[in-house]
Amino acid sequence: MDAPVPASPRPRSRVVSGMRPTGALHLGHYHGALKNWVRLQHDHECYFFVADWHALTTHYADREDLERNVYDMVVDWLAAGIDPDRATLFIQSRLPEHAELFALLAMGTPLSWLERVPSYKDQIKALTGRDLATYGFLGYPLLQAADILIYKAALVPVGEDQAPHVEITREVARRFNHLYGGGNTVLPEPAVLLTEVSKLPGLDGAKMSKSLANDIAMREEPAEVERKIRRMPTDPDRVRRTDRGNPERCPVWQFHRVYSDTDTQAWVTQGCTTAGIGCLECKQPVIDAIVRQQAPWRERAEAYLSNPKQVHWIVEVGTERARARARQTMREVRGAMGLVY
Amino acid sequence: MDAPVPASPRPRSRVVSGMRPTGALHLGHYHGALKNWVRLQHDHECYFFVADWHALTTHYADREDLERNVYDMVVDWLAAGIDPDRATLFIQSRLPEHAELFALLAMGTPLSWLERVPSYKDQIKALTGRDLATYGFLGYPLLQAADILIYKAALVPVGEDQAPHVEITREVARRFNHLYGGGNTVLPEPAVLLTEVSKLPGLDGAKMSKSLANDIAMREEPAEVERKIRRMPTDPDRVRRTDRGNPERCPVWQFHRVYSDTDTQAWVTQGCTTAGIGCLECKQPVIDAIVRQQAPWRERAEAYLSNPKQVHWIVEVGTERARARARQTMREVRGAMGLVY
Repeated sequence: MDAPVPASPRPRSRVVSGMRPTGALHLGHYHGALKNWVRLQHDHECYFFVADWHALTTHYADREDLERNVYDMVVDWLAAGIDPDRATLFIQSRLPEHAELFALLAMGTPLSWLERVPSYKDQIKALTGRDLATYGFLGYPLLQAADILIYKAALVPVGEDQAPHVEITREVARRFNHLYGGGNTVLPEPAVLLTEVSKLPGLDGAKMSKSLANDIAMREEPAEVERKIRRMPTDPDRVRRTDRGNPERCPVWQFHRVYSDTDTQAWVTQGCTTAGIGCLECKQPVIDAIVRQQAPWRERAEAYLSNPKQVHWIVEVGTERARARARQTMREVRGAMGLVY
Repeated sequence: MDAPVPASPRPRSRVVSGMRPTGALHLGHYHGALKNWVRLQHDHECYFFVADWHALTTHYADREDLERNVYDMVVDWLAAGIDPDRATLFIQSRLPEHAELFALLAMGTPLSWLERVPSYKDQIKALTGRDLATYGFLGYPLLQAADILIYKAALVPVGEDQAPHVEITREVARRFNHLYGGGNTVLPEPAVLLTEVSKLPGLDGAKMSKSLANDIAMREEPAEVERKIRRMPTDPDRVRRTDRGNPERCPVWQFHRVYSDTDTQAWVTQGCTTAGIGCLECKQPVIDAIVRQQAPWRERAEAYLSNPKQVHWIVEVGTERARARARQTMREVRGAMGLVY
C-alpha cells in the first residue's frame, strides 16, 4: 500500500470573517459572502464567527430571538457547504478575550479614527428611529479590529465598501506595535482580500433584505421560490406580451446574470428584446436553477436540524479552538503592555 | 467550652473601590482614601482593586513600571492595615469579565452621557501634552461602571468630586435593567458613600503629588520625613523669628490639622501668632506624629517585602474570589441579554 499523500504541504494563510446573526440567510447573503467562505476554506485556515455582539450595537433592544437567529444562521453556513473539519466556527460572545482586547486597544485609539469611518455616519443616517449614537456603536470598527487581530489574521475577505474597516484595523495594529512592541510585531496587520462577489438584488431590484420582504431564503420551499419569482416585477415598459423588453431594466435579468449560463442569457436577451418569449417563460430557468442549487442545502440542513446537538457540538469545538488561539494572543498582548504580574 | 460567638450576624453591604497603580503611596493617598478603606473593611464586605486598565487610559505609553507600581501599592494597602482576610484585594486586568461587561454596556450607553462627565473635559485640559482624546479615555466612566456593577456593589465610597461617576453608573444600571431586565433588577444601582476625608496638601501647600515632588511617601524613611518637613515653607510673611505668623497662610498648619490634637493646635496658634515659637519648633510635633504613624506601616511593609510570594498569594486568592462573583454576574447579564446559547 502506498503512503497517503499529505493533504496540503504549504502553510495556509489565516482568514477571519464574521457575520451578524440576522437569522436564516437569504440568497443575497449567500452570493455576497457565504459562497466566498465556502471557496476560501479549501486553501485557507478559516475562522468564521457569529458576530452576536455586533448585532447588539445596532439592535440593542431586540434580544428575544438572538439564540434562534444564531443557530439558524450556523445551520445555513453548514448547509451551504462550510465544513467544520476545515473551518473553525464559533460565537463571538463566548470569548470575553475579544472584549478584553477591545478595551485594551481602546486606550490608544484616537476618537477621530472612529468618527471618520465612512459607515459610522452613513448608518446613523440610514437607521433613523433607533438611538444609535451610543458608545458601542462608535466603537464598532474597534471591536471588529479586536475580532480580527486576536487571531492574527493574515487576510480579511471584504467587499470594497468594507475596506475602510480593515484599514482602521491595520492602523490600530500598527499603533499597538509602535507603542508596546519594542521593535516586535505583536499584532500583525491583516491584508484586505478583496472578493469579487456576485451581487444578487432583491425581487424588486433593491438590495435583498428580509425587512424589505424582497428576499428568497436559502432554505425557501421550492413552491415558494416559484411563487416569488413568478410574481417578480419585470421591465415596467413591457406591459403586454407583444411589447419588446429591455433586460437592463428588468430585475429578473440580474438573476439570470447570476444563475444562467451564456446560452440561456443569449436566449433571454434575444427573446426579451424581440418579444419572442414572455416574462414567465423567461423566469422558468431562474426558478429551476435556484431550486436545483437549494436541493443539497436543504438536504444538509435537514440532517443538521434533525440533530441540533450536532450543531451545538460543532460550535462548541470551534469556540474552544478559537479560545486557545485568542488566549495565546492575549498572553502576548498583556506581556507587551506590561500587564503580567 | 462555650460555642464561639458568630462573627457578624448582620449582612454587610458590599463596597467596591479601586485605585490606579501609581506606585508607592504617599500621605495624601492615605488620608484621601486608604484610611477610609481601612475603616470600611470592619463593617462592610469590601472589594478593593488595582485599577491597572484605568492607568492605561491616561498613561497608555508608560507601561514599563506597571508591575512594580502595582505591587508597591498593594504593599502599602497591607501596610496601612487592609486585612486580606476581611477585604478582597484583586487586580482589574486579571478579570476579562470587566471588559466583557464594559463592551456589553457600551451598546446601550449614549455618547452624550460620557461626553458630559465633568472630569472628561477637565482632564483633557489638565493633561495637555498627552493625546487623551482616545476612545478608551472617553469610556473611562463606563469601565468604572462595569467595575462596580459586576460586583453588585451597594456602596461606592467617593469624595464629592467623584460623585458624577457614580451617578453615571446608576444611570447605566437603570438603563440595562430597563432594556433587558424584564421587570427584574439584574444590576442593582449602587449608592454613593460620601466620605469625609481629611485632605492633606503637599509640602508646598499644593495638592500632594509625586510628580510635583511635594510628597511624603507612606514608607518614607524617618530621617527623610524630618528633612522634608524641616524644609517646608511656612507663612511667607514670617521672615524673621520675631515676626508674628498666621497659621492660615502656613502649609505646616494643614499638617497640624491632620496630625495634632487640640492642645498642640492651640499651642501652635498661640505660639505662631505671638512669635512665641519658631517654625522649626512648630514643625517638631508634626514630624513626631508622622514618624509615629508610619512605624507600624513600615513594620508590616517590611514583613511583606521580605516575603513577596505572600503578597502575590494574597492578590491571587482575592482575584479568584472576585472572579467567582464576576462570573456569576456575567451569567445573569448574558442571560438577561439573551446571549446564552
